[in-house]
Amino acid sequence: MNDGGESRLREAASRYCNWGRWGPDDQAGTLNFITPELVVAASRLVRRGRVFSLAIPFDETGPQKGHLGRFNPLRFMLRDGDDVFARAMPGVPRGIGGADDVVVMASQGATHWDALGHMFYADRMWNGYDCRLVSSMGAEKNDITGYRDRIVGRAVLLDLPRHLGVEWCEPGRAITTDDLTACADRQRVEIRRGDIVLLRFGHIAMCRARGEWGGYAGGDAPGLAFDTLGWVFQSEVAAVASDTWGVEVRPNELSFTSQPWHRVAIPQIGLCVGEIFDLDRLAADCAADGVYEMFFSANPCPVTGAVGGPINPTAVK
Amino acid sequence: MNDGGESRLREAASRYCNWGRWGPDDQAGTLNFITPELVVAASRLVRRGRVFSLAIPFDETGPQKGHLGRFNPLRFMLRDGDDVFARAMPGVPRGIGGADDVVVMASQGATHWDALGHMFYADRMWNGYDCRLVSSMGAEKNDITGYRDRIVGRAVLLDLPRHLGVEWCEPGRAITTDDLTACADRQRVEIRRGDIVLLRFGHIAMCRARGEWGGYAGGDAPGLAFDTLGWVFQSEVAAVASDTWGVEVRPNELSFTSQPWHRVAIPQIGLCVGEIFDLDRLAADCAADGVYEMFFSANPCPVTGAVGGPINPTAVK
Amino acid sequence: MNDGGESRLREAASRYCNWGRWGPDDQAGTLNFITPELVVAASRLVRRGRVFSLAIPFDETGPQKGHLGRFNPLRFMLRDGDDVFARAMPGVPRGIGGADDVVVMASQGATHWDALGHMFYADRMWNGYDCRLVSSMGAEKNDITGYRDRIVGRAVLLDLPRHLGVEWCEPGRAITTDDLTACADRQRVEIRRGDIVLLRFGHIAMCRARGEWGGYAGGDAPGLAFDTLGWVFQSEVAAVASDTWGVEVRPNELSFTSQPWHRVAIPQIGLCVGEIFDLDRLAADCAADGVYEMFFSANPCPVTGAVGGPINPTAVK
Amino acid sequence: MNDGGESRLREAASRYCNWGRWGPDDQAGTLNFITPELVVAASRLVRRGRVFSLAIPFDETGPQKGHLGRFNPLRFMLRDGDDVFARAMPGVPRGIGGADDVVVMASQGATHWDALGHMFYADRMWNGYDCRLVSSMGAEKNDITGYRDRIVGRAVLLDLPRHLGVEWCEPGRAITTDDLTACADRQRVEIRRGDIVLLRFGHIAMCRARGEWGGYAGGDAPGLAFDTLGWVFQSEVAAVASDTWGVEVRPNELSFTSQPWHRVAIPQIGLCVGEIFDLDRLAADCAADGVYEMFFSANPCPVTGAVGGPINPTAVK
Repeated sequence: MNDGGESRLREAASRYCNWGRWGPDDQAGTLNFITPELVVAASRLVRRGRVFSLAIPFDETGPQKGHLGRFNPLRFMLRDGDDVFARAMPGVPRGIGGADDVVVMASQGATHWDALGHMFYADRMWNGYDCRLVSSMGAEKNDITGYRDRIVGRAVLLDLPRHLGVEWCEPGRAITTDDLTACADRQRVEIRRGDIVLLRFGHIAMCRARGEWGGYAGGDAPGLAFDTLGWVFQSEVAAVASDTWGVEVRPNELSFTSQPWHRVAIPQIGLCVGEIFDLDRLAADCAADGVYEMFFSANPCPVTGAVGGPINPTAVK
Repeated sequence: MNDGGESRLREAASRYCNWGRWGPDDQAGTLNFITPELVVAASRLVRRGRVFSLAIPFDETGPQKGHLGRFNPLRFMLRDGDDVFARAMPGVPRGIGGADDVVVMASQGATHWDALGHMFYADRMWNGYDCRLVSSMGAEKNDITGYRDRIVGRAVLLDLPRHLGVEWCEPGRAITTDDLTACADRQRVEIRRGDIVLLRFGHIAMCRARGEWGGYAGGDAPGLAFDTLGWVFQSEVAAVASDTWGVEVRPNELSFTSQPWHRVAIPQIGLCVGEIFDLDRLAADCAADGVYEMFFSANPCPVTGAVGGPINPTAVK
Repeated sequence: MNDGGESRLREAASRYCNWGRWGPDDQAGTLNFITPELVVAASRLVRRGRVFSLAIPFDETGPQKGHLGRFNPLRFMLRDGDDVFARAMPGVPRGIGGADDVVVMASQGATHWDALGHMFYADRMWNGYDCRLVSSMGAEKNDITGYRDRIVGRAVLLDLPRHLGVEWCEPGRAITTDDLTACADRQRVEIRRGDIVLLRFGHIAMCRARGEWGGYAGGDAPGLAFDTLGWVFQSEVAAVASDTWGVEVRPNELSFTSQPWHRVAIPQIGLCVGEIFDLDRLAADCAADGVYEMFFSANPCPVTGAVGGPINPTAVK
Repeated sequence: MNDGGESRLREAASRYCNWGRWGPDDQAGTLNFITPELVVAASRLVRRGRVFSLAIPFDETGPQKGHLGRFNPLRFMLRDGDDVFARAMPGVPRGIGGADDVVVMASQGATHWDALGHMFYADRMWNGYDCRLVSSMGAEKNDITGYRDRIVGRAVLLDLPRHLGVEWCEPGRAITTDDLTACADRQRVEIRRGDIVLLRFGHIAMCRARGEWGGYAGGDAPGLAFDTLGWVFQSEVAAVASDTWGVEVRPNELSFTSQPWHRVAIPQIGLCVGEIFDLDRLAADCAADGVYEMFFSANPCPVTGAVGGPINPTAVK
């Protein structure tokens, strides 16, 4: 059936739906798979005490070029050391003082979580809430504050380029469920309920090698195939994050809508999705010690009403 | 000697100085006290898998009223659910789509870390760097990125109001080294090298009880006495954070300069300082189970050049 | 009929409607009443060469307190004189250089024009355009750029407190068509087609006298009665601006909707509306020389897609 | 003498200096040349009632690419028509309501005046004020509010490409005093004390023809030669504005400092300088009717402490 994907999307949205699974008022979705027991177990993965920051630099060197109105972080000083050197500031002698600053950022501009209120399908968002609850005044339901104390647990890195024997997955390459399963097998790591799955496609590595972001933000990219939705649903993972702008493969597989995987993963499955994670140093470490599971912590700042959460995701091995 | 505190400040700055301790290029200060071994040990403090967010809401209900040019976080939508309901947006059929937003925040406006470049004394900042390295263009040295993968470890909560048998410490109350020591003893918890010390003065609790922030941002507050600098230095803690605007007692004890404790703690000791931490729920849990030590994780987003880091500090027990 | 005003609003919207009057594509509304001839005639009102700025200060002392998400203007320096004094900046020796800054403002936060896309009635805006043409992406129709070269002409000041013999019109006082007519008569000035009418209610004067803005932004205020819509329509004025937050009287006269006068004036009549104009110095001058007509110029910056235009309205006598 | 221009700069700064000319407290500089009589005379230049907006669009299509931290204007909606269509907003029935927005702009990002506090030479700014009066807290002296009611008067357009018989002046082309004088002669227009001089180099026309801004913001450009400072000083013009990023020729003529003309024109002469003026339509009109003088009005919004003023300069013929 050649319908541009409308029926495939509809079928997936119907089949892979967790609405009501954690009650009618839930606003945390698949993060509910993380139990206190799993948090305790995850903490035991800290073996060497090595800490990894998975954020890209939050500055003007970032990948955004205006697509969807997003822009790279701006920072302005409110007071600085030149002030303190040049003159006495209020309440202090010359040479003593402080610096302050301001940041202006698009929530989805650098490394971030999508909130559950970030994505809509058929006028609905996660758990069946009306999409109109996300208005210009912010998200009354499913804002980022639902994640404020939920994202601590076990992470597993799947390093697809290493598995596939390439430097990076090429833009347009769709990673299938079989790829994911084979990669986990090769890495001798098991994906379990409640896991935070870190998908390395090598896309940031490609941009680094080329010395430019090119079409990173909204252009062609490697990523998950639409059919991985079944795997996401059935594996009961808590979160999926990647080193790309949008996790799923681009050009998109269905013509009916852009980002079809998102339309099911977030509103229907209630999946916590992370984007623009820099996984290269972590991947090198995992390749070196052969350990692809780790403790992970990345609670976003609770910006009331926000639909994205800038973060510095932290993995500890 | 009645000099308004200039000589006391100078003496403390000279006596409690860690410049060069971790090499001439260091930009992480006392966070160097956290070793991989301590991270591993801290992870073993996760016993019940209970996660605590220590951030206040990042929104217009925050405490800022313009002091020092700081303001409460602003959030603007770039796209929303009303758009998706009302009309087909580019690339998607009506009823399908996404929401995006933008945040504008003062780094020190809500829960945050001070970067080492936040504070200057005698034209210098941490590790002896010239304060002019923090210009309008941002901090070339000692910006918040030095903390990007350093703030994971053991935290200890000191709940001073509970120790002192009051609902909250009154504004103006100076907490001394003896108070800190006695509080730790009472709580049967030891402060160790590399610890992140969470100081609850009950100041947010007071504001909650009164239903208004009042002078929270820059007004009178309970806090550390100037003389605790010796304890901070000798105990070799990695960080100190509190539920106040500025950790130290206000009105300040020395008239020579505002915030005298800061002028030593940050530029000379290289201390990681956290402010506007909401410790009330964590404190209730600690009072209930009698356990005042915990795993802690709070790496800030690496905003290049920034002198403050908005965070959602996460404690795990 | 006691229906909360729904039928009164509907009737006014139907009766006072200029849709199509200047063609189906018009996006300038009543500013079309200003002809080149009127611009020439207005220029002849410059007799003494005295220039008046009618803007309030654009800074943190402004009236906004968060109502409707509006806030007072924020300004941040990108470079400053302390930098130039303290150090050589890129490309220049020490002591030479420049300062730059950034402003963050709500379009309706200080003195401004409402764009025609600012207001909707029955899903429509000026000239019958669908309100959905003003989305999160901005106004595709009726944005402020339609005013970019249209607001030069003759202005007439109506000084209502002086006419009524009071220091200021009290909040809640509804100014009727008869009041306007009598005021003009008393001032010996004629309101003509194409005029920019400046309405002084004395509301800023009241706030000045009291030393606080109080409820200026969105609270009770003197202002035009709903029934003045007929006068606005029939007099064919080009614009109406006042020294209040919202021109019309508050509390509003109809309970069906807030700001009922706006729902007709802007979407149906296509009226150019100005708010938060500081008319006090101009009024003093007019009282002194008895001349209440003047040349006026206030083209807003053409911010593409914007629905408000911050301005410094300029009157020349 | 081959000193990179230090002595030429010093000599010009000394020779062309208006400090104290309008008293020790003056913060308006050469705008003082505009007298009430000249305003009246300028108003008589309105002959056809034709109004010209000289601003470029304030949006993401602007020329800024990050140089000096400047960026193109950002606009965010606070409420919009999609909200009004999709749902009842507070205080209004569905289908009725309004839109609001926010702008974030670099003062020097689009069409603007430089304030007198924008530029420093030898630690001083206009009228001898210490450059340290422009700190992170804004300009205490010489901010843009000094211009709030001063920029109304006679403008003269000098259309250099038409005079020189080229489509546009090439980047790097230095326009000399002789060029200016010859151009005025050819146009049969006299430059007088108190004039606002609009210099068209054709640089925006060049970018339009090429379909890209290229190096417009901070790259090579045609512009005034350093030696025109004498002409600026002696002619006693009130303001000089151009269709380039920085009025003076680039690459700059002196190697001692970037933008040497600015270091004298603004701090020493007290000149009001305008940049990124779009003069193409005005120039076409002047070419058609042979009239190169006009009425001009461009008072900036009085942003307290700001060193630049975004404007929509308005010429009326």
